[in-house]
Amino acid sequence: MSRRPPFAEWLSQTNDVTRTFLAAGGMADVINLGGGLPEPSTYPAADLARLAHQAVEEHPEDSLNYAPIEGMTALRDLIAKRFSKGPLRVGRGNVLITTGGMQALDLLGKIFADPDSAIAAQSPTYLGALDAWRPRHPVYRPMRLNANDLDAEAALDGARFAYTVPNFSNPTGELVDVTTRRKLVEAARATGTPLVEDDPYGALFYDGPPLPRMLELDAENEGEGEGDYDGPVIYLGSLSKELAPGLRIGWVIAAPEVIGALVLAKQGTDLATSSLSQRIALDALEDGVIERNLPATLDTYRERRSALCAALEAHLSEWFTWEEPVGGMFVWITAKDPRIDTDRLLSAGLDCGVCISPGSVFDPEGTDRRSVRLNFTANPPEVLEKGVERLARAVRGLIA
Amino acid sequence: MSRRPPFAEWLSQTNDVTRTFLAAGGMADVINLGGGLPEPSTYPAADLARLAHQAVEEHPEDSLNYAPIEGMTALRDLIAKRFSKGPLRVGRGNVLITTGGMQALDLLGKIFADPDSAIAAQSPTYLGALDAWRPRHPVYRPMRLNANDLDAEAALDGARFAYTVPNFSNPTGELVDVTTRRKLVEAARATGTPLVEDDPYGALFYDGPPLPRMLELDAENEGEGEGDYDGPVIYLGSLSKELAPGLRIGWVIAAPEVIGALVLAKQGTDLATSSLSQRIALDALEDGVIERNLPATLDTYRERRSALCAALEAHLSEWFTWEEPVGGMFVWITAKDPRIDTDRLLSAGLDCGVCISPGSVFDPEGTDRRSVRLNFTANPPEVLEKGVERLARAVRGLIA
Repeated sequence: MSRRPPFAEWLSQTNDVTRTFLAAGGMADVINLGGGLPEPSTYPAADLARLAHQAVEEHPEDSLNYAPIEGMTALRDLIAKRFSKGPLRVGRGNVLITTGGMQALDLLGKIFADPDSAIAAQSPTYLGALDAWRPRHPVYRPMRLNANDLDAEAALDGARFAYTVPNFSNPTGELVDVTTRRKLVEAARATGTPLVEDDPYGALFYDGPPLPRMLELDAENEGEGEGDYDGPVIYLGSLSKELAPGLRIGWVIAAPEVIGALVLAKQGTDLATSSLSQRIALDALEDGVIERNLPATLDTYRERRSALCAALEAHLSEWFTWEEPVGGMFVWITAKDPRIDTDRLLSAGLDCGVCISPGSVFDPEGTDRRSVRLNFTANPPEVLEKGVERLARAVRGLIA
Repeated sequence: MSRRPPFAEWLSQTNDVTRTFLAAGGMADVINLGGGLPEPSTYPAADLARLAHQAVEEHPEDSLNYAPIEGMTALRDLIAKRFSKGPLRVGRGNVLITTGGMQALDLLGKIFADPDSAIAAQSPTYLGALDAWRPRHPVYRPMRLNANDLDAEAALDGARFAYTVPNFSNPTGELVDVTTRRKLVEAARATGTPLVEDDPYGALFYDGPPLPRMLELDAENEGEGEGDYDGPVIYLGSLSKELAPGLRIGWVIAAPEVIGALVLAKQGTDLATSSLSQRIALDALEDGVIERNLPATLDTYRERRSALCAALEAHLSEWFTWEEPVGGMFVWITAKDPRIDTDRLLSAGLDCGVCISPGSVFDPEGTDRRSVRLNFTANPPEVLEKGVERLARAVRGLIA
């Protein structure tokens, strides 16, 4: 094009690191530890082929016509039922179906953020969330969640919303402890600030039982009322890790007033989520496909986590520290050697045939040069070890 | 919720008329002439059931894993090939797959609009486009496209982009003539302003052959160069009307620089479109499903269009004027009787058991009180006639 008007302002601030990871995923001979993809062989393909056929054959109108903006009624009801337990009562009006978990982030930015409004965000922050909110021009208040000096009330007060990934945060793999969860819920209650609990990895606990969700902890505050959930927690779920990301099925559970605003935003965003995907998701949930499939997936990922951590111990312990995560998809390693600049390590790694995610992309200020996110779900143990060996070679080159 | 921070500013300006239509679609005993839905029995369900199964069984990774942000490579290539003809050369880098046509509108607003930037829009304007761009706070320059005093260059000059639906505009059903198409293309070339050609109804020509697309007309300006398309037209296509809206498959064809910006926006919007839907769309296009199915769909819609217009002639010609459209899904009727306020006619109609779309919702200023959009695709002839009878009863009540 010879000339054109300017693009919107935010586009001059964007980075394309995610695209670099995705492109590296397709590069021959590059081991990609920088992505965040599941292992495709864990998807229950035979079940899904059957359910895809069944969806269109038995429910052609449901599967092929526009779904309601809010989502397919039966799917909303089923999710409401699955999440209602103990004092938590989730009704249809608490549930919105989204086009993957990512769409929920886009919609939240749309309904809550005006230019320069504050978002209190767990730090470091999921890169996709930063991408989703860039067009809204927010400012960030970073929260170090497990730090014992966290003042959650100060962080939330006056923010448009707070953003957290309590189960195995992307990027750090950190599990937010129950005390901190309670502290966040109390702060949301005290300040009125909506508290987003983004939970794409909640099914991926490898050691021990899941911790209670903040949505559940908050329901204890709702008392013995008769109504559906009406508190400040906004819970985001997804089938991308438990079933298959290609379906693009996620959901939001929140107070009905928030769901209403999200529906208005979704109306102008994609009108509705694929009805075929929704019908397949409904049938997969009713059919128990996830429950049958998940244990083998967890075994695969548990083994890979251990393999990655063993390789780190063998090849990188001289220069980095980390904690072995109890779930999720990532290990976060931090350089103890001041000569290691992790932005430079991205290109040094690519030269050695390994792709990583440098910490800077998860930092709204982009200043972190000491950390790296490594993914362990997308590669088998022997490839993970080879990738770490290559990374060690890149480190040696960098500090030589 | 007891208290919460304010929602984003645009939410206080929104209307919920689309939801009223959609809700009316589900109300027992209300004939819905206000929506814009296809007839579900026209969808090739048997073919799609077969293709859905085949997609997952034969291509499990393609169908179940994340697709690339830009869309599935083979689908982009196929669309590029189908649109390349005469001087128009479309390459993979010109194509982005979107989650329905609506997502393209959201992404265009994100990449082009900052607060108070101007959009030159065909007037009246598709409600969904106004919904999509509301969070960006644009201002509108209305363009009456077939008016012989249209100064396209003045309308486009300095606007961030221009928006048109040349084939059977939603809401008016208007077909933009070739002279005006050329005038718009020339204006886009002269001013550098991107020209959006939104074409969801392009396959629904009932009388005579399709007119040339602006994308094609503009390619004549590109000369005998060797490269792929790099002009100012941004073409939006969709399978929602030709195949099935539940798949949520649309696409953008534009200069590579614009596609690049849209990809950055899509990355933070839903990461990727359903890979299962993309795989089914690819196989349906290769398999000729659309070509086999479309003639019967056109017969159905042609008959319904004639039935609606005959009913209007019989029951409403005293109070309204209209032109019989040669394609698309809508008839636009304009009151000649000054006592008819079409906003009031929406509720009067609902009282009589018929839902319509009042003209005000398609007007960024919301001042049109004389026009009504009627849909003819979603109901059989006898229901259309009954709906028009009810509308006539509502009119008589209104002016009594």
